[in-house]
Amino acid sequence: MVKIDLDFVKELTLKERAELVTGKDFWFTANVPGVKSMMMTDGPSGLRKQADGADALGINASVDAVCFPSSALTASSFDEKMLFKLGENLGIAASAVNVGVLLGPGVNIKRSPLAGRNFEYFSEDPLLTGKMGVAYVKGVQSKGVGVSVKHFAANNREDQRFTSSSNIDERTLREIYLSQFERIVTEAQPATIMCSYNRLNGVLNSQNQHLLTDILRNEWGFEGFVMSDWGAVADHVAALKAGLDLEMPGKGQASVDEIVTAVKEGQLDEATLNRSVLRILKIVEKWGKNHAEKVNYDKDQQHEFARKLADESIILLKNENQQLPLNTEKSIAIIGELAQKPRYEGGGSSHVNAHHLVTPLEAAPENTKYAPGYDLTTDKVDTELESKAVNLAKENDQIVFFAGFPEEMETEGFDKKSIALPKNQNHLLTEIIKVNPNVVVVLENGSVVEIPWANQVPAIVETYLAGEAVGEATWDILTGKVNPSGKLSETFPIKLADNPTYLTFDASKKEENYHEGIFVGYRYYDSKGIPVRFPFGHGLSYTKFEYSDLQITEKENRVEVNFEIKNVGQRSGKEVAQLYVGNKTSFIEKPKKELRAFTKVNLEPGESKKVTLFLTRRDFAWYNTENNSWQIDNGSYEIFVGSSVADIRLKDKFTLTIGTTPTVKINRDTYINEVINSKDSVVKKALQTSGLGSELEKMLNPENEAIFANMPLRALGMVNIPEKMVKDFIAEAN
Amino acid sequence: MVKIDLDFVKELTLKERAELVTGKDFWFTANVPGVKSMMMTDGPSGLRKQADGADALGINASVDAVCFPSSALTASSFDEKMLFKLGENLGIAASAVNVGVLLGPGVNIKRSPLAGRNFEYFSEDPLLTGKMGVAYVKGVQSKGVGVSVKHFAANNREDQRFTSSSNIDERTLREIYLSQFERIVTEAQPATIMCSYNRLNGVLNSQNQHLLTDILRNEWGFEGFVMSDWGAVADHVAALKAGLDLEMPGKGQASVDEIVTAVKEGQLDEATLNRSVLRILKIVEKWGKNHAEKVNYDKDQQHEFARKLADESIILLKNENQQLPLNTEKSIAIIGELAQKPRYEGGGSSHVNAHHLVTPLEAAPENTKYAPGYDLTTDKVDTELESKAVNLAKENDQIVFFAGFPEEMETEGFDKKSIALPKNQNHLLTEIIKVNPNVVVVLENGSVVEIPWANQVPAIVETYLAGEAVGEATWDILTGKVNPSGKLSETFPIKLADNPTYLTFDASKKEENYHEGIFVGYRYYDSKGIPVRFPFGHGLSYTKFEYSDLQITEKENRVEVNFEIKNVGQRSGKEVAQLYVGNKTSFIEKPKKELRAFTKVNLEPGESKKVTLFLTRRDFAWYNTENNSWQIDNGSYEIFVGSSVADIRLKDKFTLTIGTTPTVKINRDTYINEVINSKDSVVKKALQTSGLGSELEKMLNPENEAIFANMPLRALGMVNIPEKMVKDFIAEAN
Repeated sequence: MVKIDLDFVKELTLKERAELVTGKDFWFTANVPGVKSMMMTDGPSGLRKQADGADALGINASVDAVCFPSSALTASSFDEKMLFKLGENLGIAASAVNVGVLLGPGVNIKRSPLAGRNFEYFSEDPLLTGKMGVAYVKGVQSKGVGVSVKHFAANNREDQRFTSSSNIDERTLREIYLSQFERIVTEAQPATIMCSYNRLNGVLNSQNQHLLTDILRNEWGFEGFVMSDWGAVADHVAALKAGLDLEMPGKGQASVDEIVTAVKEGQLDEATLNRSVLRILKIVEKWGKNHAEKVNYDKDQQHEFARKLADESIILLKNENQQLPLNTEKSIAIIGELAQKPRYEGGGSSHVNAHHLVTPLEAAPENTKYAPGYDLTTDKVDTELESKAVNLAKENDQIVFFAGFPEEMETEGFDKKSIALPKNQNHLLTEIIKVNPNVVVVLENGSVVEIPWANQVPAIVETYLAGEAVGEATWDILTGKVNPSGKLSETFPIKLADNPTYLTFDASKKEENYHEGIFVGYRYYDSKGIPVRFPFGHGLSYTKFEYSDLQITEKENRVEVNFEIKNVGQRSGKEVAQLYVGNKTSFIEKPKKELRAFTKVNLEPGESKKVTLFLTRRDFAWYNTENNSWQIDNGSYEIFVGSSVADIRLKDKFTLTIGTTPTVKINRDTYINEVINSKDSVVKKALQTSGLGSELEKMLNPENEAIFANMPLRALGMVNIPEKMVKDFIAEAN
Repeated sequence: MVKIDLDFVKELTLKERAELVTGKDFWFTANVPGVKSMMMTDGPSGLRKQADGADALGINASVDAVCFPSSALTASSFDEKMLFKLGENLGIAASAVNVGVLLGPGVNIKRSPLAGRNFEYFSEDPLLTGKMGVAYVKGVQSKGVGVSVKHFAANNREDQRFTSSSNIDERTLREIYLSQFERIVTEAQPATIMCSYNRLNGVLNSQNQHLLTDILRNEWGFEGFVMSDWGAVADHVAALKAGLDLEMPGKGQASVDEIVTAVKEGQLDEATLNRSVLRILKIVEKWGKNHAEKVNYDKDQQHEFARKLADESIILLKNENQQLPLNTEKSIAIIGELAQKPRYEGGGSSHVNAHHLVTPLEAAPENTKYAPGYDLTTDKVDTELESKAVNLAKENDQIVFFAGFPEEMETEGFDKKSIALPKNQNHLLTEIIKVNPNVVVVLENGSVVEIPWANQVPAIVETYLAGEAVGEATWDILTGKVNPSGKLSETFPIKLADNPTYLTFDASKKEENYHEGIFVGYRYYDSKGIPVRFPFGHGLSYTKFEYSDLQITEKENRVEVNFEIKNVGQRSGKEVAQLYVGNKTSFIEKPKKELRAFTKVNLEPGESKKVTLFLTRRDFAWYNTENNSWQIDNGSYEIFVGSSVADIRLKDKFTLTIGTTPTVKINRDTYINEVINSKDSVVKKALQTSGLGSELEKMLNPENEAIFANMPLRALGMVNIPEKMVKDFIAEAN
């Protein structure tokens, strides 16, 4: 083996180095003497390795592989261990075919329900996204396969995604759109990062020095290489300078020529080129090993894991009158073509050639009847299909109604215009409820859906895109073989118009303005008190849990939160306990509460467990753009513990002291009310000795204080308080 | 008389010139040989000329003057003629005491219901604000008195108003926060503009060259002088350079010295100083004439005008079962201390020493009974006061309940924390409704109030701060002597949390982020479909109006809109017809509709009138920050005509052709769907001759088109379409 270092890089010809910073083709890095090329392959939810001879567009059929649930569902597990195992499974699948880097996970924040790629992202919350991402990345990389964490960053819409500028203030960027990347980079050190298509505040991400170098490398210490999303590079030389390393998939010879020319003509410094070449070679050296022969890749076993992962993630949204689990003694009718032709995976780079799809119809208990009821290829009501389904509903005791978005409605590459179900599905359901109210609705959809009939059905189960074991997992939940424990990783609003991005999402061709700032997802609905259909963190169980004994203790640079959870129902089950923090201290825009910790607890009937969660200083921090740093203000905070953001079971206030107490610097812009209310003895003394105290006393009275105390010291000149007295006071007070 | 020109200025000593750019004292400009000093005085709603010997704080009692309704009420007249007459009255009052410049009107936009100064502003809508402002300014200046239009600009909160930065994107700034200033400057050429305390995007307004010079003078052609709000200057030299002319009230000798020193030390160019001195002297020459002896100032006549103005402005918010007008044959009980001690004027610089206050209690019909019911100095329920009031309510046929904000809750200088009425008022009202549902509520408040009991009372009348004739005008409406014709100039939300600024208003000490952008007031509620208590433009009458025959015609650079209004009720009345425009064309963020014209029509019973309103090109324009200009896109627009923003009676679409049709320039960033859908024959031909057309045809199919057509031309390199072919196409297509 050659030794990969800067000397090695320098000995390569200019042409070889130019070849290395662009894709050899759609899926491979270039090879140079001593270093083989490395394959990179799609597949955050299952391997999408193109079959040999795939065309350049990369949309050919891929190899047979197990299709796992999409991230929209896996995040609902709130279970880092399961995500680690998912990563392991994917790593095994990838290494079995000598893939060096798996292109995933996608960790963008779900900002608008309309965004076309929401199905392959985890959550509207950066903490949940980050924790799921860390576990996934560690799992994959534990099997000797690198990952590419994507899409860096703020790539939250598909329309005009190559050019649109995501306009975001720096605090929001840091707290909402980057913090999950930060967590993954610092905790899991992914092999590569995939830079997204869009602009950020006007600058193309592929040419964004602030993002790719200042933040990613200098602040977070990222050591791998940055590749472009496919076709995201507009100016290869500018991209290399900004910190992008690998252009994918490259433009063939043209890509090589432009680099060679740029170096020769002095537009690109060789050191810059060498920097990227070295980064790429280091990663190829580390992750590009061919170890297929050593791998035990059992697809049937992976299928079982896909089922288990879905079991742990499917969310029971509603269950009145113990409609679920189904009574298998009584008759069951299955209605909806989605039972037969399920939505179980996403489109675009997430698409997998599934190893063994088991549809809900195939997995259904014996003696169930079926009627498609609607046609997935249209949203028009088919009266014949509908009347057959209604008749079937009349004749059976229990109805399982499958509803969801057809794939045409949501995939990579474009955004939705609506989050309503197709008209024929809503219409059929309404007709069925009229003849038989015992309806369980099973949802198959990549992202948030409007549920206008939510109050008219007793039970709703959300399966998102559940992977190839969709049928088995769905019935595991419906029949009670598995007790549901998934929780929503995003808010289901009552209607699209309730979302903060309504009216502005995709409203402009050239830019996407993040008007709502940090108020994304539940940070908006919960803080503004807007009624929602199902809140963030919501998910029911077939048993019940009680919370008690909240205790908050500050200990050595962190805060320990203890409480008890008890299973007070009749069967074993798992509860995701969520800890939210409310900042009552900082004079900044802030949500009512933010998720800062969670855990999933398994409890037998009657069992009780003590839960301990830790909060670090960072969990109380906000990003101060004045000095570009995370600020932790000492003072009062609220701790909320609960079963969802809206179902808080325990809460208490406490005073943080492990942060910092800013020393108020008095200057000309300091307001009089701050001065006269100051508890600082130096300030008090300065008021006295400078004479300003008695002047202010003369000036202020109960009637004018509200107005006059809201004046800064510099304005005192106009009420004939001598400038010198103010200056003396300021000098003495500091 | 001396001739005021640059030569005159240059002959003044440096000290004299330094004196001229700062206030001589709280209310006067400096005098120099040949030019007397000019008095400037508060009073947008009535003269607030300080009595002789007033103290420096300017809060001493002022001269006796007629107190007119505040702008919150006068804007509700939607009547430019009335506002012109108000201006005339104020001009007469000012000139009678030799005031050269009246410090008003305030024309800031009502962004948050919490903002402390909303009572002295006109509206949440810039068109209504601008038209009211123009009429007011022309009225005052027609009497030889100049005005100071304030507070320039984006001064929409009181807390930390000396330092807080209003952070606003340029399009929002132009369309919402500046357009009323632009209208007033270009149509009425006010003598002076008052620069506000706050920062705008980080720069203090008093030092903001973009605002004070680039926009105000260079774009709009303002010819007068710019003075500071009292104490708004932090750096006098920087302010002069940016375009501020007069520091008010000045810091005495210190202000003069700093200018003299700055010139001597070369920090301030004499030309800059001379420019401001000349502007000030020109205005003093024009408006600073003492013509008191020529003025016929009849305060009793002005009082009658104050009553008439309130009559035309008070809004009948609700009137079920013809609860109003009151039946004077039946007994009436007046409840609420506000009947006896009315809120009829604003605090701070709006405060007037009223000539002749007539309270609602004094103006009440004979034989009405009265109980205060609550104590205005507290929000605590007084059970004795309350039980007396409840008993009175039982004994009488009709109740007139006075409710509102005590002055302590809202004035200049600080912001509100809530828009709820004091608890004792809400409590008492609830008790009264239980014993007698025939309640008419009369509201006295400076700004939007939550009305939780709106559905429980048959009638509500909004009088805002109605001026010294509050009593007479209130009963004019209640008894039906006057048929109400006022319309809300702002939206009444159901609750504060419904407002777009909820959670972020006053959330940060240092900045105020205008997250909602152009979606201010009804532009937010109406576009997002958020239910409101009373919509913008709402106001009932004792008669009914019907709208018909909408016709839209494009004629010579403007659009003519014709329709009919008929009085189909039993008594004469006035209707404010409102015309809103909806842009269906531009690919930008846009509200559902925006007010673009209105008119007030007087109709006898059965009478019908044809209304003609004109829309100019600007009424279809949006501010394009890419080229800093107003853009008018040809295409489809919707015209809405109605009685409020939510009560649209007529609507139609039409196609605008007097704007511009942007020629699409094809470049590397042009998306494939724009190229293949282009109707431009040049583009079509270029597709053919370059060969790109057939390549794209090969690439695209119904299954992938949604994704691949959402790619720009520059990304075609990765699918092996030669760069040269794309270049050739681009060259030929343009």
